[in-house]
Order: sequence, then structure tokens, then C-alpha cells
Amino acid sequence: MYGTKRVIRALHSNAPRFSIATRLQASGLKINSERLWNTLHETCEWGAEHRYGEKPTDTGMARLALNDDDARVRRWFAAEVQKLGCSLSVDQMGNMFARQSGRLNSAAPMIAMGSHLDTQPRGGRYDGILGIMAALEVLRTMKESGFQTDYDVGVVNWTNEEGARFPKSMCSSGVWAGAIPIQQAWDLRDIHDPSVTLRSELERHGYLGGIACSSDPATGYPLGAHFELHIEQGPILPENNKSIGVVRGAQGYRWLTMTVHGRDAHTGTTPFSARQDPLLASSRMIAASHDIAKRHDALASTGIIRVPSNASTNTVSSQVTFTLDIRHPQDSVVHAVQDKCLNAFEAIALQDGKGVSFDWTLDTDSPAVKFDDNCVASIQAAADQLVGREKSMLMTSGAGHDTVYTSKHCPSAMIFVPCRDGVSHHPTEHCSPQDCALGTQALLEAVVHYDQFRVEAEGQN
Amino acid sequence: MYGTKRVIRALHSNAPRFSIATRLQASGLKINSERLWNTLHETCEWGAEHRYGEKPTDTGMARLALNDDDARVRRWFAAEVQKLGCSLSVDQMGNMFARQSGRLNSAAPMIAMGSHLDTQPRGGRYDGILGIMAALEVLRTMKESGFQTDYDVGVVNWTNEEGARFPKSMCSSGVWAGAIPIQQAWDLRDIHDPSVTLRSELERHGYLGGIACSSDPATGYPLGAHFELHIEQGPILPENNKSIGVVRGAQGYRWLTMTVHGRDAHTGTTPFSARQDPLLASSRMIAASHDIAKRHDALASTGIIRVPSNASTNTVSSQVTFTLDIRHPQDSVVHAVQDKCLNAFEAIALQDGKGVSFDWTLDTDSPAVKFDDNCVASIQAAADQLVGREKSMLMTSGAGHDTVYTSKHCPSAMIFVPCRDGVSHHPTEHCSPQDCALGTQALLEAVVHYDQFRVEAEGQN
Repeated sequence: MYGTKRVIRALHSNAPRFSIATRLQASGLKINSERLWNTLHETCEWGAEHRYGEKPTDTGMARLALNDDDARVRRWFAAEVQKLGCSLSVDQMGNMFARQSGRLNSAAPMIAMGSHLDTQPRGGRYDGILGIMAALEVLRTMKESGFQTDYDVGVVNWTNEEGARFPKSMCSSGVWAGAIPIQQAWDLRDIHDPSVTLRSELERHGYLGGIACSSDPATGYPLGAHFELHIEQGPILPENNKSIGVVRGAQGYRWLTMTVHGRDAHTGTTPFSARQDPLLASSRMIAASHDIAKRHDALASTGIIRVPSNASTNTVSSQVTFTLDIRHPQDSVVHAVQDKCLNAFEAIALQDGKGVSFDWTLDTDSPAVKFDDNCVASIQAAADQLVGREKSMLMTSGAGHDTVYTSKHCPSAMIFVPCRDGVSHHPTEHCSPQDCALGTQALLEAVVHYDQFRVEAEGQN
Repeated sequence: MYGTKRVIRALHSNAPRFSIATRLQASGLKINSERLWNTLHETCEWGAEHRYGEKPTDTGMARLALNDDDARVRRWFAAEVQKLGCSLSVDQMGNMFARQSGRLNSAAPMIAMGSHLDTQPRGGRYDGILGIMAALEVLRTMKESGFQTDYDVGVVNWTNEEGARFPKSMCSSGVWAGAIPIQQAWDLRDIHDPSVTLRSELERHGYLGGIACSSDPATGYPLGAHFELHIEQGPILPENNKSIGVVRGAQGYRWLTMTVHGRDAHTGTTPFSARQDPLLASSRMIAASHDIAKRHDALASTGIIRVPSNASTNTVSSQVTFTLDIRHPQDSVVHAVQDKCLNAFEAIALQDGKGVSFDWTLDTDSPAVKFDDNCVASIQAAADQLVGREKSMLMTSGAGHDTVYTSKHCPSAMIFVPCRDGVSHHPTEHCSPQDCALGTQALLEAVVHYDQFRVEAEGQN
């Protein structure tokens, strides 16, 4: 989208960075951290659940996509951005695009700050929500100080990012990016009430917009860039004593389901030598996959294991299924770990008794994603300015985010801030007021920085 | 019950056996193998399910305790034994005692041949059923040839041995033996319909008898001895090319439930070093318990493993539970294996990441059982006579049986015959007509032998 010669290449190596970027200027603005904090927690009244402490904010959230509380916060969000003078567009997946005009009055796609307002059923107050509230605070700060970017800037609230109610994560940014057919997304059923679809809930709340859910400029809502502030959801920032994560991409991952076949047998009457025990074999496989991944500095994890529902203490199971989630920032390592695991599993299958057999399916193959160098450089410049190089770190996202999809169709990158003990998707998920404010200021600076870069870069085209 | 000086001690060592027993005589009778086979399969029409082949008998069984089919076969059994001239008594657990008078017209408790007519929901045609049909065939053979034992002999059909519908195995022999309070047994609920209890089903079918379910001669139905023919339910007989198992006891076993506590975490964002992964730890524990048991020539098995219902591919579970079933013919080995497993588990809990914790409960503690030497000697004498010493073997039962409970209150032992591939609790469970007949003939000879021994032994008191 931008001339490759203009890319700030230094990020690829350890050479000095930001030959262009460092010439650009800080905004001179300061976000209102108290307003940010209060707005975030006031709006969390819609969907607050799972109290765990005494303070008013000591609850988690259960604001599932397109439930009544999600509809309430959407209406509030629409009113707030319109108060700021933003135009608001809603596409056919209910994605909300709030847009503030820039100085240039350019028709070019806006620089977006995006995330999501929906939560897990036992989620917290920061995952997704912080990204939207920070974006709103950036617009409020600019508005009150009469600051204008050159290009249009705005906020995107992506629908059903969690995939907790309608089971597909990053569902609407996925449709926008052309990775998920809209009919498939519309047809997703509420996991507890199959009579309700994502589309029927969009219609019920008036969020089935007229614009195509697409990055296509002719029919949809293209973006000039996409920045997302998010809690890290892991322990790397706190463990390294860093306050800003400059996220340059997302890990590759593959999800496999293994099915191990044995033979049911009485545990009291069947000698080990006569058994085909799929649970014993699965146990050895899970341990082996961990050890193999560890040797490759990769991750391999089993979250689900299932024995038949009629399993009993005194019966060797006939079959066991388990999941395997392999991750690494490089696809080649993901593949190598998978190959070594499968080889190890073949040996394990023969190890005990009369042996077992197994088969497997590849359920998800998500190659590694590299974010846009210029977006990353703008975030790094913001971090350098706010906390210095020592308190920020380049990171790869371990989790999926809407930005993974936007990065296919516009320059994109992410900012991480620490969350307490790395805990998320849990009521006690917590990001300190200081970290919320710092992340929001970094988001503002990164957007302003990128806007300046864009003027310079496009001016040179 | 019998003077210990009269016990045939040779079984305890490898010294020559049966100093008394070998002086006793074979019955001279021959069971009718065709009648046995036909009766068994005709009565399996009540409860036949799970067809797996072309032949009429190629089905399994689903004759759960006290369901309508079980009531039908009970009524048929009552009519058959009465045709043979037996008296029939039913106790308060629905246990059915059919009794044929002996020559002595002794009031002493009868020599019983017992087993059960109920099956697993996906059970076979031989487990339990063979024991009852064989006992009936023994009575029919005696009757048609005018043969009388000295003491009374008879058949016992024990209620709800499988514990598949009302979840307690060997439930009614357990009440008879005083090991299970009758109220607890009566209150057992149908696992699929909690409005139905074992007692309500006894009442519905008219099987809530008036006799106390007890071995107490004053109120209950004491037995002079208990012999049970059963399929082996394991591969040891066929693998050793033996046709009769002389069962001298039952393994000790302990059932533990382990609960391993970790912390839920995102598999993409949480480095191994920060995890507390209970499924990884459980996997290592299951593998370790197998390896420890193997070194002790014992058995350790995990039949059930559970992760929380909200487990997902990309979340490290917060908690895992799994069962551990440890068995060995000697209680000291069962205890040693348990101790070594728990020690190993403590080390494993610290092994990965930030470690996990675990606790455990002892759900069942069933010490090893030694059957009566004289009953075992009678079975060995029968086996010697029918197949020779080379084709029989002394065994320890790996599974629980009603005989384990009767052995607490009367001299008891069991006969095993091979079942195909050691498979049981499965529709394809199969015992050949030859092995059914051989087991039945052995049961007849053992009872006749024991009856002679009893006369001799009591005569010398």
C-alpha cells in the first residue's frame, strides 16, 4: 500500500531504527487518565458479573456479543462518538466505524483504532474494552484540545471478537478481511440457544447495517491503518519489567485433534501385556509433545482430553481424544514440532502392551502473521518517547486479535500493556489505571506519528 | 466353620495335594451340553440387544437388574427350579435361593451354586448368566439320573451384581454378607431415572421377599458353601492354553481419585515457565503409575480423566481429575505401589513451570480375599479329573464377584472358563459351547466332591 522503499526497514535487524520516524513529532497532547478509567468502569455496568472483591469495580464481565448489555453499550458508544462530531457507519456484521475528519479532508481511508466491546462469559473488564475506551479517549483528547490529524482517524468496534456466544473468534474482522464468508458468520448459532443466530441478533438490535462488511473501497469500509491497544494476556511484560509491548506480529499456530484407539478391557483381569490402553498412550503423548516443544522453544499444549461417557474406574477406555495446540512465531518451527510429535506418537503407540493406533485431524492452521513495519515503528516511537527503550519490548502476540485480520488488508500493529499476573478471560483480569493510561497515551502518539508518516510517505509518492 | 485340622493344606505349598480329596469319587454324571447351551440362549431372548453378527445368538445383552426382562427371566427361573422339585426362597434384596433336598435331610445350610442373571447395558450372554444356567443344568442332570447329594444343594441368583443400573456392584451379596446396609442398597437410584429405586423395583416385580438378606441362621439364609462358575473376563487362560481356572482368591485393590489443581491460562500467551498445567502433570502421573506398577508386577490403571466442561483447545485447564485403580493379589504390594505412586506424583507436581498441587481420596479399599482351601481343593479335583493338571491353573480373580462376599460367611471358591480374547462387558463376549459344558461339568463335580468331603469332615467332628 505504501512504496516499499519508504518502509522503515531497521526493525528487521538490530541496526538503528526510525530513520524517518524519529524526525516526526510528539503530539503534545495528554490523555485524561481519570476520564478514561471512569468511562471504562461506568460502561462495564452493562454486563458486570462475577463479583470477586469489595470495590465497585471488583467484578468480571459477561457481555456476550449482541446480548442486551452489548446492545446497550453499543448505543452508548454510538451516542458518544456522535457527540464528538464523528460520523458513524455500521456494516452488515454490525461492525461500528466512528470517523473524525482530518485537516486534509482526504477521502483516503481513515487511520483506525479498533478492538471489541464483547467479552467472554467469565471475562474481565479490559480485554477488548480497554482498546475501545482508549480509542474514544484519544478522540476526546484531540477534540477538547482542537487537535486534528491530517488524515481522518476513528474507532472500530468489531462484532463478536471473542466467539464465546457465536462460536467463531475474530468473526467480523474475519468477514471484513474476506477470510470468513458472511453467510457462515450470519448463520452462527448461540451456543446455548440454537434458535438464535448472529444475524437474528443483529436484526433484533438494529445492527444489521447497510454497508458491505469488506475492505473493498467500492462496497465496504476500507481502512488506512489499524492500531489496537490490548492487555497482554500473558506474563511476559511483567516478568521482564516492561510497561509497553510493541507487537510486531502474531505467532503461527496449528490445532490438531488426536484420536487414539485401543480396546476396552477390565482393569482387574487384563494384564498389561494384553492391553491396548489409549489413555496411557495419550498420557505419554501429551508429555512427549510438551518436551519436544520445549526443546524447540515453541509451545505445545493440550487443553481438552475426553474419554467415552461410559468410562469407568475399572475399565480401560476404548478411545481417547485430545487436542494439541502448537505455536511458534515461525511457521517452520510449528511444522517441525508437529512432525516430531507425530513421530514420537508413532513410537509411543507401540510402546505398551499390544499397542494402540491413532489418527488426527488438522482443525486450524493459522500461519504466523507479520504486522506492518511502519505501524510497528510508530508504536516503538511512541514507546520510546513515553517510557524509553528499556521499558518497552518487541513482542509477538500469542493470541489472536482482530488486528491479525486487518493486517491482511491495511497496515496494522498492536500495543500491549501488562495485566496482573498475566491473567485474562477471567473475572479478576486487571490492568492498573496507570497502565491503561500509558497504553492510551501510546495509542494516541502512535496514531499521530503514523499520520505524520503517512503524509510524508504519500507526499513522496 | 470346619475344623482347621481337616483343611486340605497342600494348596498352600507345592507339596502333593488332596490327601483326603483324592479318595473321594467322581459323580459318574454327565451334564447335557446341548440343553445347557439352548437354555442359556433361549433365556437370553429376554434382554437381547446390540446385534453384531448373523447368527441368532450374535447379540449382546441389556438385561439390567430388575428391569422388565430381568423380571421375566426371574419368573422363568422360579418356575424351572420348582419343576425340579426345589423349594424357592426370596430375601429382602430379591436374592433367589432354590434348594434341592439331599439324602441326609439335613437342616444344615445348602451347598450353593450362585451367580447373577443381570447384565451390563452393553454386556454379553455369559457373564453371570452362565453361572446360573450351569447351576440349573447341574440340578437337571442330578434330577434326571436320580442322583442325590448328601447335603442339600441349590442355586442362588444374586440381585444387581453388575451395579450397572443401581450403582453398587455385588450389591445384594454385599448386603447378605453384612458389608452393605440394606437401607443403603434399597435406596440406590436408577442411574437414568432417579425417581426409581432398587426397592421400588423389587416391589413392582414382587421380589421384595420376606426373609432377611443375611447369612444369619436365625433370620436370613445361611449357606453351607458357595461355588461360582464364571467366564474369566481376561486373557490369562487362553494365553496359557488352559481350559479351567481354579480360583483361590481375589486380588486386593484400591481405587483413588486424584484431583490436580493448576491455573487456567491462555496457551498462546503463557510461556511454559509461567504455567501450572494440571493436564500435563496428570499425564506424567498416569504414565508414572503404570511404570511403577509394572516394576511391582502389579496393575495400575486410569479409566476416567476429566477436564472442566468449559475446557478449550487454547486454554490450560484449571483442574483435572483422574482415577487410579491399583491391584495385586497381596495387599502389601497394593500399598507399596500406592505409596510409590504418591511419592512420584509429588515430584511430578514440581516438575513443570510453576508446578501444580494435588489431593486425592481413597474411594474403595478392597483387601485381597483368600477363598476356602477345601472348596478350592474340590474344584482342583474336578479339574484334574476332567482335563488333567496341565490344562488347569490356579488363579486369582482380577474382578469382583458375589463369591468375594459369600467367602466372608461360608466356604467359597470359583471356577473360571475362558472367554474369547478375554473380552467381557461387551456384546461380543463369547464362551464356546465346549467351555460352557466343561465349566458346568466341573461345577457339578466340585459340588459333589465337596458334598462328600463335607460328610467326611463333619462325620469326624
